[in-house]
Amino acid sequence: MNRKEITVFEDLLGSNKKIANELRHYLRAKGIFTINLMSSPGSGKTSLIEKLIDHLWPQHPLAVIEGDIETDLDAARIRAKGVPAWQITTGGACHLEAKMIARIIREIPEKTEFLFIENVGNLVCPASYDLGENLRFVLLSIPEGEDKPLKYPKAFLTAQGLIITKIDLLGPISFDLDKVKEEARKINPTLVIFTTSSRTGEGIKEFATYLIQQRQRFQENNA
Amino acid sequence: MNRKEITVFEDLLGSNKKIANELRHYLRAKGIFTINLMSSPGSGKTSLIEKLIDHLWPQHPLAVIEGDIETDLDAARIRAKGVPAWQITTGGACHLEAKMIARIIREIPEKTEFLFIENVGNLVCPASYDLGENLRFVLLSIPEGEDKPLKYPKAFLTAQGLIITKIDLLGPISFDLDKVKEEARKINPTLVIFTTSSRTGEGIKEFATYLIQQRQRFQENNA
Repeated sequence: MNRKEITVFEDLLGSNKKIANELRHYLRAKGIFTINLMSSPGSGKTSLIEKLIDHLWPQHPLAVIEGDIETDLDAARIRAKGVPAWQITTGGACHLEAKMIARIIREIPEKTEFLFIENVGNLVCPASYDLGENLRFVLLSIPEGEDKPLKYPKAFLTAQGLIITKIDLLGPISFDLDKVKEEARKINPTLVIFTTSSRTGEGIKEFATYLIQQRQRFQENNA
Repeated sequence: MNRKEITVFEDLLGSNKKIANELRHYLRAKGIFTINLMSSPGSGKTSLIEKLIDHLWPQHPLAVIEGDIETDLDAARIRAKGVPAWQITTGGACHLEAKMIARIIREIPEKTEFLFIENVGNLVCPASYDLGENLRFVLLSIPEGEDKPLKYPKAFLTAQGLIITKIDLLGPISFDLDKVKEEARKINPTLVIFTTSSRTGEGIKEFATYLIQQRQRFQENNA
């Protein structure tokens, strides 16, 4: 980027941060615990949310915002489960911004406990945009390969957690799980790591339980 | 994007196009047939190039430019095969630009027949940047799922071809190959489609043969 581009980018991030902080304030006041999911296209973000719904819904009311360049395929998948979902299509932009979330946020039903925001499928741009979330998780699927933490450090650095998905493919695909965990923690030593399979259900309950606990702790701290 | 951002972006694309055209002119004069590979992280771009090398090298001298946000892991993989490779690390940017290629281009050995440019792992941004290539191929791996052409139409629209990779995972993973081909061709009716597996070698020879033919035809048309 040249100097002019950098200035525009910094202005953009500054104004994004301001809106994100307003969002955070609003969500906290409403008791809505928000999780921003980031990954490459096809890492299994929507499938993970579908499986989480099976564990959380309807005892824990939730809502989903889906981000994509085009189509509302993902929101339709969530709505098919009876869960309120909004689709944001960015029409080209490779990430969601706080202002896009802000336009929707007041439509989220009262008593919603969890808001899942599925970012645009991209390991690069979404890492720069705070959406006012409580937790940011990056997903990495087994078929994507072991080298992704080193290649996309910012995604791993700005997340609180990593979910290694499609763990059922560990058989047919060679993937050194320990090495990936170690490299991810070299970038971000406090990273919480889950391994899941949306096909077999492995690890989904553990992740759902973790989210319930995190929300509870957050509510207590803000009581 | 607001109006100021759009103006900067258009300026950027305009100046990229200008450099890309200069690159194209230079590459044509040198007889270097250039292929720009675009995909999500982990779709198998580097593995495909490694396998193509086994079919093309050393009878058809080639060179590789690797684009990544961070690390020179991919260039090291190519060099391990004795093939000249350059790593561009963008330090954050989610795509390669023509000016990055221009800095390297004069280092490419005489008599090089093929230049493979592996773009940054991203299905969004690289689609907007002409690198002076002859052919642009988008890769889609079986684990990424069937919905990618509809969700990332620009990548499929601006490419001449699609390579469906990791075809050996069609067993463990459900993926409607015919549907994906049909949807991709709805976006871009002239798309050439290959199916490959870098693990089993399926389809690699066919793609290598296609590239040799395409270069030959191009050379004849420019004789």
